[in-house]
Amino acid sequence: MQQFTETLAVSAQGRKLYDITQEVLDWVHGQGLSTGLLTLYIQHTSASLLINENYDSDVLVDMEAFFNRLVPDGDSLFIHTIEGPDDMPAHVRTALTQTSLSIPVRDGKVALGQWQGIFMFEHRMMSASRRVLMHLIGD
Amino acid sequence: MQQFTETLAVSAQGRKLYDITQEVLDWVHGQGLSTGLLTLYIQHTSASLLINENYDSDVLVDMEAFFNRLVPDGDSLFIHTIEGPDDMPAHVRTALTQTSLSIPVRDGKVALGQWQGIFMFEHRMMSASRRVLMHLIGD
Amino acid sequence: MQQFTETLAVSAQGRKLYDITQEVLDWVHGQGLSTGLLTLYIQHTSASLLINENYDSDVLVDMEAFFNRLVPDGDSLFIHTIEGPDDMPAHVRTALTQTSLSIPVRDGKVALGQWQGIFMFEHRMMSASRRVLMHLIGD
Repeated sequence: MQQFTETLAVSAQGRKLYDITQEVLDWVHGQGLSTGLLTLYIQHTSASLLINENYDSDVLVDMEAFFNRLVPDGDSLFIHTIEGPDDMPAHVRTALTQTSLSIPVRDGKVALGQWQGIFMFEHRMMSASRRVLMHLIGD
Repeated sequence: MQQFTETLAVSAQGRKLYDITQEVLDWVHGQGLSTGLLTLYIQHTSASLLINENYDSDVLVDMEAFFNRLVPDGDSLFIHTIEGPDDMPAHVRTALTQTSLSIPVRDGKVALGQWQGIFMFEHRMMSASRRVLMHLIGD
Repeated sequence: MQQFTETLAVSAQGRKLYDITQEVLDWVHGQGLSTGLLTLYIQHTSASLLINENYDSDVLVDMEAFFNRLVPDGDSLFIHTIEGPDDMPAHVRTALTQTSLSIPVRDGKVALGQWQGIFMFEHRMMSASRRVLMHLIGD
């Protein structure tokens, strides 16, 4: 049984879903395991992880529209406004999605479904450097 | 240390919470590990996983009612409508719940709490064949 | 490769975010692993887990305010009311957050980001004894 870890740096230019599928697959497949478990972990509280459809880009547009409506910027409910009108909504959006994700590896491949992609969901409007940790265990 | 993987096929007849607890427990307990980690992963973007109360079936009815109200079918916000009025809501509902779940195994048992069940949450109205991967590592 | 498990008991006095970061870190660091994967699992359906900002306590106040508004107690939508007006909302809030969380261990440390804390999110108004399982695998 072996373990591998790596940090994937994602350069985000504002609120958006960033497709990181290929970078993740490349790293995992480079380790040469046959069976294992991949865990992704994002080290932030205003950006998150999401498995989502990666075929029709309209899905990404709609996903962002839904979260923008559900957790509106500048909501008068919030008292933590010192970091801007999009900061507290970013924390809430992170809470509603994922900070960690685990995906099995089978037959040497990350076992994503046919339409699944792995996304980094940036919730702040400004640019930010984000870190996604990758941990792989298996043999 | 050993690993095991299996695919659990779930035949869904429309939007509903499907209790898969017994199938999961049977498979894990059949592997005979004492201590380990079970990870469930669903290979879809319009169905998800949920740990929920499995005692009073009214909880399942209310859970579905809440998500139906929070993410209404046919919402005019959405532009991705080509696959039907329930497709984009299904992607959002998946984002708001879980694609992967990990549960420790202790003393040879999956460490569910007393009232916890494992559910596959189908979000489409139509029938669908769903695949839940099970990965187990331990000794 | 080694495994360790432990139960963290959390005594909750009503609905609130309880910071359990230090207890988790202390336990993990006591096992002396260099590289590994930590999984937290809560054995309840009306309390959940959350990675959240642990710097400004206003973030916790706002997070609770958001969930109180999104899933109001005593909502007439719900039929499962026998355990009180906050019980079904507690199940929904659990579904919208996390029952399990996995965090890599690197260089002997739990790889939390600079502003991340680990919280137990109690959703019931009454006092409750909660159990968070910790599973660690690595070497």
